[in-house]
Amino acid sequence: MITFCQFGAGRIGAIHAANIAAHPGARLAAIIDSDGAAAERLAERHGTRVGAEAEALADPAITAVAIASSTDTHADLIEAAARAGKAIFCEKPIDLDRRRAEACVAVAQQCGVPLMIGFNRRFDPQFARLEQEIRAGRIGRPELLTIKSYDPAPPTIEFVRRSGGLFRDMMIHDFDMACWLLNEEPVEVFARGSVLVDPAIGAAGDFDTGVASLRMRSGALCQIAGTRRAVYGYDQRIEVLGSEGALHAGNVVESTVVFHGAEGIVSDKPLPFFLQRYAEAYRRELDHFITAVADGVAPAVGGADGIRALALAGAAEESARTGRPVAL
Amino acid sequence: MITFCQFGAGRIGAIHAANIAAHPGARLAAIIDSDGAAAERLAERHGTRVGAEAEALADPAITAVAIASSTDTHADLIEAAARAGKAIFCEKPIDLDRRRAEACVAVAQQCGVPLMIGFNRRFDPQFARLEQEIRAGRIGRPELLTIKSYDPAPPTIEFVRRSGGLFRDMMIHDFDMACWLLNEEPVEVFARGSVLVDPAIGAAGDFDTGVASLRMRSGALCQIAGTRRAVYGYDQRIEVLGSEGALHAGNVVESTVVFHGAEGIVSDKPLPFFLQRYAEAYRRELDHFITAVADGVAPAVGGADGIRALALAGAAEESARTGRPVAL
Amino acid sequence: MITFCQFGAGRIGAIHAANIAAHPGARLAAIIDSDGAAAERLAERHGTRVGAEAEALADPAITAVAIASSTDTHADLIEAAARAGKAIFCEKPIDLDRRRAEACVAVAQQCGVPLMIGFNRRFDPQFARLEQEIRAGRIGRPELLTIKSYDPAPPTIEFVRRSGGLFRDMMIHDFDMACWLLNEEPVEVFARGSVLVDPAIGAAGDFDTGVASLRMRSGALCQIAGTRRAVYGYDQRIEVLGSEGALHAGNVVESTVVFHGAEGIVSDKPLPFFLQRYAEAYRRELDHFITAVADGVAPAVGGADGIRALALAGAAEESARTGRPVAL
Amino acid sequence: MITFCQFGAGRIGAIHAANIAAHPGARLAAIIDSDGAAAERLAERHGTRVGAEAEALADPAITAVAIASSTDTHADLIEAAARAGKAIFCEKPIDLDRRRAEACVAVAQQCGVPLMIGFNRRFDPQFARLEQEIRAGRIGRPELLTIKSYDPAPPTIEFVRRSGGLFRDMMIHDFDMACWLLNEEPVEVFARGSVLVDPAIGAAGDFDTGVASLRMRSGALCQIAGTRRAVYGYDQRIEVLGSEGALHAGNVVESTVVFHGAEGIVSDKPLPFFLQRYAEAYRRELDHFITAVADGVAPAVGGADGIRALALAGAAEESARTGRPVAL
Repeated sequence: MITFCQFGAGRIGAIHAANIAAHPGARLAAIIDSDGAAAERLAERHGTRVGAEAEALADPAITAVAIASSTDTHADLIEAAARAGKAIFCEKPIDLDRRRAEACVAVAQQCGVPLMIGFNRRFDPQFARLEQEIRAGRIGRPELLTIKSYDPAPPTIEFVRRSGGLFRDMMIHDFDMACWLLNEEPVEVFARGSVLVDPAIGAAGDFDTGVASLRMRSGALCQIAGTRRAVYGYDQRIEVLGSEGALHAGNVVESTVVFHGAEGIVSDKPLPFFLQRYAEAYRRELDHFITAVADGVAPAVGGADGIRALALAGAAEESARTGRPVAL
Repeated sequence: MITFCQFGAGRIGAIHAANIAAHPGARLAAIIDSDGAAAERLAERHGTRVGAEAEALADPAITAVAIASSTDTHADLIEAAARAGKAIFCEKPIDLDRRRAEACVAVAQQCGVPLMIGFNRRFDPQFARLEQEIRAGRIGRPELLTIKSYDPAPPTIEFVRRSGGLFRDMMIHDFDMACWLLNEEPVEVFARGSVLVDPAIGAAGDFDTGVASLRMRSGALCQIAGTRRAVYGYDQRIEVLGSEGALHAGNVVESTVVFHGAEGIVSDKPLPFFLQRYAEAYRRELDHFITAVADGVAPAVGGADGIRALALAGAAEESARTGRPVAL
Repeated sequence: MITFCQFGAGRIGAIHAANIAAHPGARLAAIIDSDGAAAERLAERHGTRVGAEAEALADPAITAVAIASSTDTHADLIEAAARAGKAIFCEKPIDLDRRRAEACVAVAQQCGVPLMIGFNRRFDPQFARLEQEIRAGRIGRPELLTIKSYDPAPPTIEFVRRSGGLFRDMMIHDFDMACWLLNEEPVEVFARGSVLVDPAIGAAGDFDTGVASLRMRSGALCQIAGTRRAVYGYDQRIEVLGSEGALHAGNVVESTVVFHGAEGIVSDKPLPFFLQRYAEAYRRELDHFITAVADGVAPAVGGADGIRALALAGAAEESARTGRPVAL
Repeated sequence: MITFCQFGAGRIGAIHAANIAAHPGARLAAIIDSDGAAAERLAERHGTRVGAEAEALADPAITAVAIASSTDTHADLIEAAARAGKAIFCEKPIDLDRRRAEACVAVAQQCGVPLMIGFNRRFDPQFARLEQEIRAGRIGRPELLTIKSYDPAPPTIEFVRRSGGLFRDMMIHDFDMACWLLNEEPVEVFARGSVLVDPAIGAAGDFDTGVASLRMRSGALCQIAGTRRAVYGYDQRIEVLGSEGALHAGNVVESTVVFHGAEGIVSDKPLPFFLQRYAEAYRRELDHFITAVADGVAPAVGGADGIRALALAGAAEESARTGRPVAL
């Protein structure tokens, strides 16, 4: 039984708390959030209590922390939890600053605690299946990877300002997916960003639409496209072409019901957003962490993965700003 | 909080027990099965105990029963539970004999207890969505309904012998769906059966492949096809054509991953069997029962629905045996 | 080079005339129609002339006739053309009366002329491919066949009156397809018809919606559904389930372009009607006839096929009228 | 009636010759090819004769030329034909050298003759439909364009050597599509190429796999991917996302027949290569040219389009060689 203290009672915190509470191998001992009322509500929903950082980290009964608080708190919490000997599950990104991220990952390593970064998409049943098929050699050597990752609607400008930008907030997932699916390291990234959805996003110093091209060590090529707005829903698709075929992972739709009418043949839209599309991915991700910690093995997605994706996102940002490809 | 005693610890019993145990509004107080070891295993899995019929029905703390034991025990259990004042959830069919079914439903009615029959497909998200769209008038007046319901592989001959036959065991679901989706009563059924899959099924006096045509009061027509074997999986599809369009509910597939290779474009198969395809339907079905009982309203699928489907299945059987349509 | 005289300058006549005129192995020597102006227009379009029956049949340069005139003229023309030693391509049905049909087919046989009946769907690339796969054994032994054949909109009441009714006009195609695809003879048909689309069709003594069940000699079962109205277009689909899998032939759509919008994912509708959907089928059908005649071999779809489909349509009509299955 | 002399009797020449010969508004007067036997065969197939350049260009009866000879002959033939006052249809690319291309287009302009470049994909029914929907505003403002263009198998090394390379030979089509679909000019291209399919292609100084990113004046972004090998067939797909939705044009498949078997649900592959996939596009392209010339209006795809696509291909090649984006 892994006993958790969770930091963060917001949208993503609610997902993790529910998954911890429902897991037969885990117990949710405390919720901590600077917004006390939010912590209270979430604690109540899962029959647990509101905690405080120092006390929780000092509590030997608590063996793991789930960090789902705001990004600027991640690195400090990782270090504090590592020093307290807790197993750590932390939402992506580790930190917006790569050096800070590296420093706190080093601390976790020195302390010898398990650290997992929340790249939930690796646990999505569709993408996990895609990866298994690639690894099993079904398409031979992968050559061309395409990732489409479109949000249904832009977040608030406040969120945009704190987010680290399109590449570090959204596309960081795709950078992780690219390395994971192709199972190799990128040597170059070229990116471009535009402001097409909302000028306020541009005024906040960010892009709302972006593309990136990765070249991998083997010569395999990868194209990623992202936008803050697709009016038909959360569009999350991956294609990979190899020497012996291609694999496509499509959207998960609301139902299989298809209407045939005078205006055309109308299928259901993709699931509306990440809460729905990745519900199972979040569940499996936490199950993986809990199982790994219980079994005393390293979780599949560690600090190095978090740093690599962050480095790629930073390089993409730099490329989009300077107009030049960035070697990695 | 509804406290359940469950009869039956077999395949379908395991599903219901898990759904009761996981439901926040329900408690599983006892499992009863003539196979004591099976009851023990299932009770242990859900942290409950093995009970005995008389004691359980006498226990005022138990307010509901879930009947998932063999078909020949359903009617007696319904009557006993009704007389003990319990709310009753009973797997289909009520009984293979229509008069016996009518008699026990009448007892439940006299005792004033809620009785719900387990036509789980009404709670499948795909078919529920289809029904909502029809009711909302999206296709105007329904005119032609097609139901395909193919099992992946035949059951054991022992099961076949006890099953009541293709029409009462398998197609009974489709008869219920037809009445529910078209929202009206059938006036005639014509059916034909063949033995194409396994001669042993024929030797056991049953068909393994069958079709039925229903004519409804309004003149709407319905075609149902069923077989004990579709080598590509559990094929469960419904189409309905109306004056203003058509709605199709397709299979739910294992993943959206599609392989493109020299031999063609290969998509995943349907979910393998009812445990997977209707997992959510079973959950929603029991949730409906629990909520209805808690709210003091009649469950959506009552004894009359069970009798109607049984009558249709019996008429189809008669039609297939005599070669003549049967008026209802 | 096969030199044709064509009877009939209407809608279907225009299709055949164009295909004959465009065929490198054929020549269209004359068009004959009781509506002289229509004959004139069609003849002009293809650079040929208007002819007269007696003269054309007496002309030794004319070696084949294409009969696309009204159904009530088919049998007489077949006999006259047969006696004149012409190869005969005749639109379905041969005649609405089975005995008349048998008589004229017998004449063609006695005269030793090739006779082909226009069951164009056998030459549709989709259905032809389906048949090849079945024959190649891809699904093992066929067990369950489903044919959906929906017109987009009802014809005029005048057409309905002369048509021979839903079963002889529309479903006759499906009866032919069933025998062809399953490659065996039916032993029983049960049919039902309703008037759901337009009461005037009922007033004219016909049905506008119908279903039929066929039982084949082997026990294989077939379900056919037809309607005069599907508001989303011409819906023509066939499914066949066998011991080793299933094959589905879907609709041919206007384009592959799919729109993703706030209201759903919208694909194109099926091709609107038979002129579009079966354009290639009509071409291949006539090419088959021309090639067969040129090679001196019997065309694939002969008089016996025409009579069998007619007999099935008549039996279905009888079944729908009497409410009883008809043995064949 | 437009009377053509055609240069080139190879693979693409055969397509154009057949389309000219079959067009009611055109006549194919002569075929010219340095390979006399090939010219002879093609001329015979279409009942025309082998010609010679000087004589054909001097012949006042010949009003148009179709240039389908090897790329290195295009510019000279365009100039000669322009000076002879012929309407000119020329296969892409105009020339591998941009200045030479510009010079010959200038000559055509000075001579006042119609000049059309063979960007056949604009006439593909799928892509034409896509463009119409975009122009009609169905997806609002276009923001992200994705083009996939994969050949089934690499050409011979001889062809690779003469081809101008992946970007000028293959991707030139996609560059034209991008500008046409987005209806605006690109300001930057970044490209990368790899040798993943066949080292011999690398040894010949070319890439076999490539990606390109375009930035358009409005900020709209475009990603193109191309490869010389997709083992499942000719993969030609386009997606465009806009402010109000997305449009996808998918592959055209061999048939709608789908097999359901133990190994999955198997659909047909895309049409194998350009001869099949773009047969209708080639037909419509030539029909457009013939109609434009007959009507005295400029064809839709002129010299400037050919030069723009060539410039883009050259810039992509330069980018792939230097590793830097190229401003346009």
